[in-house]
Amino acid sequence: MTAQIASSRVQRSSDMLAAPSLDSILALTAPGMECVNAVILTHMQSDIPLIPALAGHLISGGGKRMRPMLTVAGAELVGYAGEHQYKLAAAVEFIHTATLLHDDVVDGSDLRRGKAAANIIYGNPATVLVGDFLFSRAFQLMVGAQNLRVLDILATASAVIAEGEVDQLTAQRKVETTEAHYLDIIAAKTAALFAAACRVAAVVADRPAQEEQALDDYGRYLGVAFQLVDDAIDYDSEAAEMGKGKGDDFRDGKMTLPVILAYAAGDEEERQFWRDAIAGFLNSDEDLERAVTIIARHGTVAATRQRAEEYAQKAIAALSIFPPSPIRVAMEEAALFAVARRY
Amino acid sequence: MTAQIASSRVQRSSDMLAAPSLDSILALTAPGMECVNAVILTHMQSDIPLIPALAGHLISGGGKRMRPMLTVAGAELVGYAGEHQYKLAAAVEFIHTATLLHDDVVDGSDLRRGKAAANIIYGNPATVLVGDFLFSRAFQLMVGAQNLRVLDILATASAVIAEGEVDQLTAQRKVETTEAHYLDIIAAKTAALFAAACRVAAVVADRPAQEEQALDDYGRYLGVAFQLVDDAIDYDSEAAEMGKGKGDDFRDGKMTLPVILAYAAGDEEERQFWRDAIAGFLNSDEDLERAVTIIARHGTVAATRQRAEEYAQKAIAALSIFPPSPIRVAMEEAALFAVARRY
Repeated sequence: MTAQIASSRVQRSSDMLAAPSLDSILALTAPGMECVNAVILTHMQSDIPLIPALAGHLISGGGKRMRPMLTVAGAELVGYAGEHQYKLAAAVEFIHTATLLHDDVVDGSDLRRGKAAANIIYGNPATVLVGDFLFSRAFQLMVGAQNLRVLDILATASAVIAEGEVDQLTAQRKVETTEAHYLDIIAAKTAALFAAACRVAAVVADRPAQEEQALDDYGRYLGVAFQLVDDAIDYDSEAAEMGKGKGDDFRDGKMTLPVILAYAAGDEEERQFWRDAIAGFLNSDEDLERAVTIIARHGTVAATRQRAEEYAQKAIAALSIFPPSPIRVAMEEAALFAVARRY
Repeated sequence: MTAQIASSRVQRSSDMLAAPSLDSILALTAPGMECVNAVILTHMQSDIPLIPALAGHLISGGGKRMRPMLTVAGAELVGYAGEHQYKLAAAVEFIHTATLLHDDVVDGSDLRRGKAAANIIYGNPATVLVGDFLFSRAFQLMVGAQNLRVLDILATASAVIAEGEVDQLTAQRKVETTEAHYLDIIAAKTAALFAAACRVAAVVADRPAQEEQALDDYGRYLGVAFQLVDDAIDYDSEAAEMGKGKGDDFRDGKMTLPVILAYAAGDEEERQFWRDAIAGFLNSDEDLERAVTIIARHGTVAATRQRAEEYAQKAIAALSIFPPSPIRVAMEEAALFAVARRY
């Protein structure tokens, strides 16, 4: 990178509070992400044509590729000179894609990223099996990085994700779910993979434990912030429509922070509404509208975003052990973006 | 093992054609399988209670544990003095259990090993997710063996299994499925894990490539024989009821060898019956009875068992590079048992 670009990035960071974006991190990781995308395309192939067709439906469906981007950014942050980060980033994306495919089956989703979900087009059986295929491919890719600790970290993250998903399933339709339980769930189902995606960059680069931990912290806090904002947007009267069906959490009876806070702050009439709605007895468009109205009255979308902002600040603080650099600034801005986004 | 036991095993092998059984291999691997079972029990635990409950439903449900037993037997065959085979055997069983859980969701099964299938009791969502959990745990266990080649072999086998399952899904309800295609499917969905379960024993023991290959061949041929017999039993008018619902393959429109051979040998009226049945238009108990009758007339269950017998003999031949020993004899007998069994 030229000094000119570097200085323009640092310059930019001074006004990033105004409108944080992913532009910097996207630009700095673009060459690496080209390599990652090539690995993804090569390794989703199979002699069984349904596999690349179904996997491609989701993989080329325009996700943000946040997680693999974090692996590439992390490798740049620690000054890694090798090439293993591309395989690892692709593995991280495959694990994520596998969980999305299985989530769509689990939730009976109709939409994913604004398109028909894979299970709707290809059916549940193929969707489950192609998830399994991608999950296996992820481990094949990791073996390529020739590092057992990386395998341990990502295998453990995968187990924790599954635990978080089952935990969420158990908590579904239970209005008494506590904030602490909810935070446990999102730490497992979302933040664990963000943390692992970041940490493995330091591991392949053979960096000291302190740097590994700092990257893990950054990813974990960012993951929590990211999920909190996802959950806020689902009830945000001002947010644009998301890719997934708006109000899905409400109809699925998932207890997310905006609802947990609204239930805690509500009067008895509102609490009865939440009990009936989360139990699944109130799930019409009008019921969703009422939920959004109650949540707006108590300001719990804003409170959830505020909580996310605190996690984003912790993520940023975790990076302070690294010397200032354009990629560090871009990663800081990415944390702010995760919170500021409206979609 | 005492010389007395060893000699009684060798003695026994002389009359094993009369009634081959798993008794020898069960006895010789019993101490090792106790260690494996302990690893399985420890590693299926989780703070999320639904996970051990659901996993335990299948894991303690009395499967034969053929695959982990092969890893333990293989380690004994090559004289491995370490302890990594227990973790690897448990990993193999977790991979197998994960695929069974996902299969039950994919096939909409009601029964598994004579009990209600997990998806019937716990629902599809939890069944999919606990499969994912066990799959992740398998890779965590493999990491414990500290050997990247083992991870590569089992990750590749897992990807091949998923490909075989998707391939089978694609071939479902297609009466024109060829014998060659069917053999490809079972080589992938079943034999790949048998082969990997055996091969990894030679890999952790750091044995020469020739021994690795011999164990791989043994497992692969045995796996094909095992699946052929499973498929034969589903139409065998003389066989005892199996754990899974009798006639499942017929009702699911799966083209297995007894049907492929019967379709090839049938007259036009029978072919029309198969076309309608495999397409799903004929699936009553009477239709199943007619299928069994046609198959008995053409002797295609016997022909399928004959094919299995040839694979079992190839499996036995693959072991010929190893010096004679009680465990070798027991593994030979296990191959004969796989073919002779009626359940």
